[in-house]
Amino acid sequence: MKVGVFTFGGDEPHLGRLEGDVVIDLGPGDSVLSRDLVPGQGEEVPVSEVQWHLPFAVADFVDFYSSLEHATNMGRMFRPDQEPLTPNWRRLPIGYHGRSGTVVPGGTEIRRPHGQRKAGDFGPSQKLDFELELGFVIGKPSRLGEPVPVARALEHVFGAVLVNDWSARDIQAFEYVPLGPFLGKSFATSISPWVTTLDELRVIPGVPQEPEPLDYLRTDSFAYDIPLEVELNGEVVSRTNARHLYWNVAQQIAHLTSNGANLRTGDLLATGTISGLGEHERGSLIELTWNEGPFLQDGDEVVLRGEPLGEVRGRIV
Amino acid sequence: MKVGVFTFGGDEPHLGRLEGDVVIDLGPGDSVLSRDLVPGQGEEVPVSEVQWHLPFAVADFVDFYSSLEHATNMGRMFRPDQEPLTPNWRRLPIGYHGRSGTVVPGGTEIRRPHGQRKAGDFGPSQKLDFELELGFVIGKPSRLGEPVPVARALEHVFGAVLVNDWSARDIQAFEYVPLGPFLGKSFATSISPWVTTLDELRVIPGVPQEPEPLDYLRTDSFAYDIPLEVELNGEVVSRTNARHLYWNVAQQIAHLTSNGANLRTGDLLATGTISGLGEHERGSLIELTWNEGPFLQDGDEVVLRGEPLGEVRGRIV
Repeated sequence: MKVGVFTFGGDEPHLGRLEGDVVIDLGPGDSVLSRDLVPGQGEEVPVSEVQWHLPFAVADFVDFYSSLEHATNMGRMFRPDQEPLTPNWRRLPIGYHGRSGTVVPGGTEIRRPHGQRKAGDFGPSQKLDFELELGFVIGKPSRLGEPVPVARALEHVFGAVLVNDWSARDIQAFEYVPLGPFLGKSFATSISPWVTTLDELRVIPGVPQEPEPLDYLRTDSFAYDIPLEVELNGEVVSRTNARHLYWNVAQQIAHLTSNGANLRTGDLLATGTISGLGEHERGSLIELTWNEGPFLQDGDEVVLRGEPLGEVRGRIV
Repeated sequence: MKVGVFTFGGDEPHLGRLEGDVVIDLGPGDSVLSRDLVPGQGEEVPVSEVQWHLPFAVADFVDFYSSLEHATNMGRMFRPDQEPLTPNWRRLPIGYHGRSGTVVPGGTEIRRPHGQRKAGDFGPSQKLDFELELGFVIGKPSRLGEPVPVARALEHVFGAVLVNDWSARDIQAFEYVPLGPFLGKSFATSISPWVTTLDELRVIPGVPQEPEPLDYLRTDSFAYDIPLEVELNGEVVSRTNARHLYWNVAQQIAHLTSNGANLRTGDLLATGTISGLGEHERGSLIELTWNEGPFLQDGDEVVLRGEPLGEVRGRIV
């Protein structure tokens, strides 16, 4: 099922289940994770007339870096004299914490961030970009000090969303050594306004992992077959598929909790940019234009799409 | 005032104001940020008999890197062939997001984390360390898209805590390129169990900043005069002072919001490790032992102290 939080006329948020062109009203509520959503019936509201809100309160937001093709492209661009993949990349799913307070529902306008584009040069970002990602939503918490075994990791996942991890490449490039991305990402992260439960996703074998992952990351390789596209001002500029991802969400959860960290209801685990091998299968403008641009202009609208997850939309202002 | 959340006998958490050896019971509540804490009176409870809890729900946790001496030490150790400070360090207060779900109150036992200590080598961290820091607690939110001017930043700060940003140096060293610290930090972060409001801190001029900060970071230089010490198994191993910090919290807030990111009530902004110039003024074992160890052993107890903030305590298990 696809569930979200909406208002229709009044101010009070309701939970709703999306079915085609209508939303089934499941009654008052402000988080799809707050109670069991049994497949009950309710009043039907046309989807065109509802206002979507954030479907759950984001606890911790972690962004991974799980596409081999994306990580390779970034390494080639920024460290051309070195191996594109850092020595840790095939050993563990690299991730970092993002800002949960600036996760916004699709449709929210995105203000161009200001920042230091290089030393002493403060102004609007001139390299504003999108990143095509999936996000997994934790519905069942785990306990501090008790790592989640990879084989049981999916029990903690409620569902998936599309994620646009907006990125200001110039701000990020100046700030990120040695502690990682900060203001280049934290101005906004858009997610699709409803969550699709895992049972609706098509599971297929994943790509081979070499070297074989350590015990705590070892699982039958799998991926989700989700065709994805990026539309920029009405034109499709990239088509790819979530099946290309190297690390899967079970491995990400096992890794995230391997040091004893707990999961909380509402944690959001994003995949990192999803790119395929082809030149038109890349999930960001920096890859599509090989850092030459053009990047996003004011007024540009980006729509990420991927059935059955729907879409996430955002316009630059 | 110093305020926290405690239980005494019963299960229901109460807000309390610490006054010397007693806690003034301010009635039921689970966050010192949830309502105006007027300096009212209430039943007095001996501090030795209360159980402290987390004083507020942590929204986003950001850890900065604001001690020139600490950043210089780390650079010398890990990039000995380069300038110790990266080109961005004097231009902006470097920071990154940490895991808010694993912030725990002082007194919580710290389990030694497992992780990849190098490629293919998974096991308990052999380089477990403390980091002596302050943290500032946001009491007044700001709006998305509206940067907080540096001159008004302190209006958003409720108070300060001591922070022990426990670090597994071996896990961190393998994982952190290129996206920053993740599991090397996310297993636990301890904060002192009560929050001291800003008016109790002694303000003094800060250290000179060179080059002069950009407009959005420019303010009368200030620091807080807080003598700090680290006690390891009953022995003081380091003495320093928060006055050594290069970047101040007003600049950190102005920077954090300069891209349009908003503050939320409960955001925690930590300073990064605080070190002084002297060999015995360093705020972490990696600096005190110049990465030779010994690091923390099972059973070790670390106490960070700094009046008027109190202390934060943690034992490795």
